[in-house]
Amino acid sequence: MRNWKLTLAYDGTAFHGWQVQPGLVTVQGELQASLRRVLGEGPLPQGSGRTDAGVHALGQVASFMLSAPIPPENLARALNRTLPPSIRVLDARHVGAGFHARHSAVAKTYEYRIFRGSLCSPFLAPFVHPCVWPLDFSLLQRAAQAVTGEHDFISLAASDPDQTLRIEVAESALEARSTIRTIFDSGWSEEGELLKYRVRGGGFLHHMVRNLVGTMLEIARGQFAPDAMLKIIAARSRSAAGPTAPAKGLFLHSVEYGEDSIL
Amino acid sequence: MRNWKLTLAYDGTAFHGWQVQPGLVTVQGELQASLRRVLGEGPLPQGSGRTDAGVHALGQVASFMLSAPIPPENLARALNRTLPPSIRVLDARHVGAGFHARHSAVAKTYEYRIFRGSLCSPFLAPFVHPCVWPLDFSLLQRAAQAVTGEHDFISLAASDPDQTLRIEVAESALEARSTIRTIFDSGWSEEGELLKYRVRGGGFLHHMVRNLVGTMLEIARGQFAPDAMLKIIAARSRSAAGPTAPAKGLFLHSVEYGEDSIL
Repeated sequence: MRNWKLTLAYDGTAFHGWQVQPGLVTVQGELQASLRRVLGEGPLPQGSGRTDAGVHALGQVASFMLSAPIPPENLARALNRTLPPSIRVLDARHVGAGFHARHSAVAKTYEYRIFRGSLCSPFLAPFVHPCVWPLDFSLLQRAAQAVTGEHDFISLAASDPDQTLRIEVAESALEARSTIRTIFDSGWSEEGELLKYRVRGGGFLHHMVRNLVGTMLEIARGQFAPDAMLKIIAARSRSAAGPTAPAKGLFLHSVEYGEDSIL
Repeated sequence: MRNWKLTLAYDGTAFHGWQVQPGLVTVQGELQASLRRVLGEGPLPQGSGRTDAGVHALGQVASFMLSAPIPPENLARALNRTLPPSIRVLDARHVGAGFHARHSAVAKTYEYRIFRGSLCSPFLAPFVHPCVWPLDFSLLQRAAQAVTGEHDFISLAASDPDQTLRIEVAESALEARSTIRTIFDSGWSEEGELLKYRVRGGGFLHHMVRNLVGTMLEIARGQFAPDAMLKIIAARSRSAAGPTAPAKGLFLHSVEYGEDSIL
């Protein structure tokens, strides 16, 4: 048996998220079915985290064990021949037996895209959240910077308590029950009619990026005070924060691993 | 009653083409339903031509009569609020009573996009035809230039005779039965990993652009002789030409009208 690491991009529009669900088309399910078609063995690929229905990925990572001896470039090519065109294997490589796409991750980066123009192209619509309110960019940036560092992000997690820890199950039972996460970088940029939010952290709670974006938009349009973000975090209550921004604007950008975990 | 001209863009992926069909989601059907929701009257919008399932539009044109007195910018905004995000009204304006989106058209431009790279992004896949064969660009260009001018294009029309004239019904019964069309411009360009074919003509037979592309690709990969295009046209037989290129790479780029038809 060899341990494998795949890097994947997908257009999440037509999928019911990453995770296998009975009777629904999911990215994990499609990948498992392709492995079975190509190699006759269908291990369940473990993702770096679950992405919700409609969320896209530029660099999702999955790991699994295979007994078939197949060169990495051949596996990538064979999977891309059998996967739907909305899922692509960008890279396939052997990794050490200890590597696990979720447990070994040391950082993840998400990107959220907001469309500011008056007319959103049909070709862009599945990948942006069109926001018609006037937004103060400096308030967005200030709120984004406030979330860097270590915080208890329970105010920005999915309100269903069973769901809060769904996306990121940490290695130990203790960590799994914590809602404290560390954000390394958090900031907005403007690109023409797009506003892009990029956030890099050690881990994220379920819905955390979409709730952060929904809250920052409320701050930037004046619904919350300019310095509301740290107070919302301190409130430790989901009801203190803004709404959940739509899934379709969210991209899992990349996942980072320590070099020793990959060897 | 006022006569209206709409310019539309759409992502054709999820539609069963332009034309209303019972039980199927079509662009014409969605537009009619939106007009009914917005204004309480639902005339059947006439398109400049039918686009097949999976074909996209950057500038389709539709015309219809409305009794409701609504300012053009309000009609565009109201339709865009009720249409799916995969269809956008780019422009709405009053036109003279004689204007008809199909009969008044004097030229149409189509674009076809081919992907030449080894790995096609999931975000690009619905809009390109990935072509893995080595292609000689100068042969593509030579074949494209050969089709300019007036020709009987029956070799490049849909093989089903009932379908051949489906996309373009000319004004008079005589013209409707002709398979002679005039191509004003026809050429390829390279943009990174994309090859784009742009063709502008007075009118097109059903499947004509996709059959032209399928035939040019066969020439450029050496399956047909370098000078085969004019011979294929002269053969006046669908079986002389290459296969029909997939719908998803095709865009209706724009439709032109004489100034007097619009006033």
